[in-house]
Amino acid sequence: MKPTPDNTQDATSSKNASHKGFAALDGAGFPDFAPGSVWLVGAGPGAPGLLTLLGYHALTQADVIVYDALVSDAILEWKREDAQLEFAGKRGGKPSAKQQDISLRLAELAKENKRVLRLKGGDPLMFGRGGEECQVLARAGIPFRIVPGITAGAGALAYAGIPTTHRDTNHSVLFLTGHDSSGDVPTGVDWEKVASASPVIVMYMAVRNLPKIGTTLLGFGRAKDEPVAIVSNASMPEQSVHITTLAAVPDDEDITTLPTPALVVIGRVVDFHEDLDWYVKTLRENALG
Amino acid sequence: MKPTPDNTQDATSSKNASHKGFAALDGAGFPDFAPGSVWLVGAGPGAPGLLTLLGYHALTQADVIVYDALVSDAILEWKREDAQLEFAGKRGGKPSAKQQDISLRLAELAKENKRVLRLKGGDPLMFGRGGEECQVLARAGIPFRIVPGITAGAGALAYAGIPTTHRDTNHSVLFLTGHDSSGDVPTGVDWEKVASASPVIVMYMAVRNLPKIGTTLLGFGRAKDEPVAIVSNASMPEQSVHITTLAAVPDDEDITTLPTPALVVIGRVVDFHEDLDWYVKTLRENALG
Repeated sequence: MKPTPDNTQDATSSKNASHKGFAALDGAGFPDFAPGSVWLVGAGPGAPGLLTLLGYHALTQADVIVYDALVSDAILEWKREDAQLEFAGKRGGKPSAKQQDISLRLAELAKENKRVLRLKGGDPLMFGRGGEECQVLARAGIPFRIVPGITAGAGALAYAGIPTTHRDTNHSVLFLTGHDSSGDVPTGVDWEKVASASPVIVMYMAVRNLPKIGTTLLGFGRAKDEPVAIVSNASMPEQSVHITTLAAVPDDEDITTLPTPALVVIGRVVDFHEDLDWYVKTLRENALG
Repeated sequence: MKPTPDNTQDATSSKNASHKGFAALDGAGFPDFAPGSVWLVGAGPGAPGLLTLLGYHALTQADVIVYDALVSDAILEWKREDAQLEFAGKRGGKPSAKQQDISLRLAELAKENKRVLRLKGGDPLMFGRGGEECQVLARAGIPFRIVPGITAGAGALAYAGIPTTHRDTNHSVLFLTGHDSSGDVPTGVDWEKVASASPVIVMYMAVRNLPKIGTTLLGFGRAKDEPVAIVSNASMPEQSVHITTLAAVPDDEDITTLPTPALVVIGRVVDFHEDLDWYVKTLRENALG
């Protein structure tokens, strides 16, 4: 905790002294995005500032960008002016592209010798089905790279001032999805085990099914007074945080109409939100994060 | 999956046309880092390219940077030339600063009207004790911001070609820590529940205690033939991935000497590593990611 001796001058008076800003990264030598390859990049929870440097670098290079509904427009605007955009998600009631079709399209574009950027909300390997896309690419012999992104759960908790772990409450956290491909509560999940798995549970895409899931968790012994947070539009200016208890969830049909995308957090860590809620109104005037 | 009509020209021939690169982000309006405030920033798993744009922006602004052992030197080199560096982690056998001392130091620096960057490996709120630091700052009335980072678990799996979730194997994932503050297997964890919690378990700081943890998980009914991956130095050129089975873990004292930091992954998703292992030797020549 001692300052480095050579660096003890008061720096406050010389803001930005000797720093070239983002321009210093041009020519830093980020990895080459080779034509004929695919980069699967996680765009993070929403705020453009939560994109990684590698993710931004990919945007400066890509010839074609195949993107999902949860990628924010502000991030797409950072693409090369002449880059193609292809939408591969659900939006405005239109049917979504089938997973196999998306994977094959990525392979097809790569075979046209393009630099193909597959841009997904959150992290591509966490409830993002990026693994399936990589399998198709690997089988087709197409070189690919995975650039992880801030998963929506981590982003939502950070922007809601809820620690994912805290020594006073939990040494573990369970992340799970609250709906399957049909939109129902996933049948492949053992809810009895989920109920006792961890003091903290973070659920993706669970708002529609939350009353049903709440009933199930209570039935398997989860405490009635456990706090629950539903974080909508995490990290975006329109973010909202709805706090309730597990006991109130089964009879609260209103929660199924909360804005989406939303993350659900169950556990004592939710109690920290009251003190640590830093993402205040004045900060939200900035749309970058 | 249809190309946007106005963007169908072959872009391959005009690489970087009309893109200003990273320099385009200068003046984009990233949020102001106010003197007298603290930003808790996750530096990600190691590769500098996995830092977020907001994290890099913070480095261009900060007057003082209080950093942990797991933050890579290459990231610190992006700081302002005149910014102070303060080390607050364990390294080279020296005792680590106490958590309460670090929190109070952050408050003290902020009260000196500095822009204080608290830079932590991975994500600050996931096994990072950032929540405790925020509590101290909140109580002292010091404005703070949390910038999430790629948690080491997500980074390790991405760079090892192991999907965190895959529809064929799991709808959930349990993240937990494999040691407590004394270095032992944490006593606050119910290992019987952990064993059945999820088809995939990702453990932080678990290598030293892995034989003991393996014995415990097998005792509580976890399958002997489940694959286990230990990912050392994730996302760095020296990354290594050791693959074994849960049955082999209890008697394999050699695994306790694998390089650290390391992440342990237990579950069928490990099987995908063989096909999806994209982080090959030639890519490792680039230290940015």
